[in-house]
Amino acid sequence: MDQIDRRHSLIKSWLHEAADLLRESFNQELEIKEKTSRTDLVTNMDREIEVFLYEKITAHFPDERILGEESVGHDIQDLDGIVWIIDPIDGTLNFIKQRANFAIMIGIYEDGVGHLGYIYDVVRDELYFAIRHNGAYCNDRRLPTVEELPLSEGLVAISNRLVVSDADEARRIAKNSSGLRVNGSAGLETAWVASGKLVAYIAPSLAPWDIAAGLVIAEEVGLVYRQVTGEKINLLQNNAVIVANRYAFQEIQNEWQ
Amino acid sequence: MDQIDRRHSLIKSWLHEAADLLRESFNQELEIKEKTSRTDLVTNMDREIEVFLYEKITAHFPDERILGEESVGHDIQDLDGIVWIIDPIDGTLNFIKQRANFAIMIGIYEDGVGHLGYIYDVVRDELYFAIRHNGAYCNDRRLPTVEELPLSEGLVAISNRLVVSDADEARRIAKNSSGLRVNGSAGLETAWVASGKLVAYIAPSLAPWDIAAGLVIAEEVGLVYRQVTGEKINLLQNNAVIVANRYAFQEIQNEWQ
Repeated sequence: MDQIDRRHSLIKSWLHEAADLLRESFNQELEIKEKTSRTDLVTNMDREIEVFLYEKITAHFPDERILGEESVGHDIQDLDGIVWIIDPIDGTLNFIKQRANFAIMIGIYEDGVGHLGYIYDVVRDELYFAIRHNGAYCNDRRLPTVEELPLSEGLVAISNRLVVSDADEARRIAKNSSGLRVNGSAGLETAWVASGKLVAYIAPSLAPWDIAAGLVIAEEVGLVYRQVTGEKINLLQNNAVIVANRYAFQEIQNEWQ
Repeated sequence: MDQIDRRHSLIKSWLHEAADLLRESFNQELEIKEKTSRTDLVTNMDREIEVFLYEKITAHFPDERILGEESVGHDIQDLDGIVWIIDPIDGTLNFIKQRANFAIMIGIYEDGVGHLGYIYDVVRDELYFAIRHNGAYCNDRRLPTVEELPLSEGLVAISNRLVVSDADEARRIAKNSSGLRVNGSAGLETAWVASGKLVAYIAPSLAPWDIAAGLVIAEEVGLVYRQVTGEKINLLQNNAVIVANRYAFQEIQNEWQ
């Protein structure tokens, strides 16, 4: 991928502009609509931020394709060439109810390989990002390679959907950890595994835009980010995923079976 | 209770001094010990902050008693007179693993009645506090009386211990809400219910120092903070609690039975 430095500068400036729009919206009434269910919501700000990013990307990189959560982008059936995968607000329920604990996410892939990944925790002003083969960062601080901690020595985040399901994998895994956390943002939970605040994150159905940015960051700190089956992530479909260090990944996989 | 303004100024200054000590400790190795189990931990900083607060309180209010999580205070068998109830670090596991998502908490009771309550989210620099009959605040912002939202329209926080238990109350309640959250700090979860970011918080066994500060804040915003049985909180023992608006409290109680 060319123009890495230019892309990085542009994306950082767009994220800060988008964050300003989101912070301004805290004082306004949100328009909230249901997508597939009572708990799958979208706001006018999800769409506004996606359009904002779409217009920036197409203005600067007109030949590149965009896959976005809110359907502003292209109809993506393959990952040939350069594809931007964006989630304007990851953790929409937190955005609506808490005005906190959400992230803007951008991943850039070339022929299916992740080159740049950004997870921006707007309210904490923490930008987690990674550039392929150049490391991962939280703001200016380089994130070290993750330790091979066992599950018993860390906090594990599991998605709401899996925790409340009748299946007992989530509870068994949580009991083997130091404690369960449910934060409601796939992006932030992945960023927190990458920065050692969580030992693992598990979710039964993440969309490509939930995964793309975090996968680039995870690879740069030595995390395993795969399907629960051990297969590689498929960014053209939803995936049941585990994000963890190599040791804890194996422990969780064993518990799953 | 007398000297409310003086107490308030002193406590705010102590909390900021204590927060500085905690932030400085982020760069140092923690001494971590197990209390009752692998997941019930205490650090040198829990003790250091408790001693710091104990010394400040006894220097300024030598006739008043102190009940603290780390046993620095007095042997409290009743709530006669003025009792300070303090938790130097609420969310010790988060403090150890994340260096975030923990709080310093102080409640002051006179003859069992809560007069002042403080929950300080050190890393977010958000001080939630309340003065009896004078309202609750997050920093300078007065918190409005909570809305009577049903469970289905809010995020519900449930303690780790209840979520991973085999009993299915937690899952049933979570399924009826907009979503489950598990944050690992009773104080922050209570503060978040008080500020409308969560519709309810449920925990099966909170100690007096987990409850004292939040109970004062909850009362000032019209929340119900009671035992799951509906009985009043008993600050001389552990309590199974629900913190919620009147409507959601009733919904949760019904689901429990």
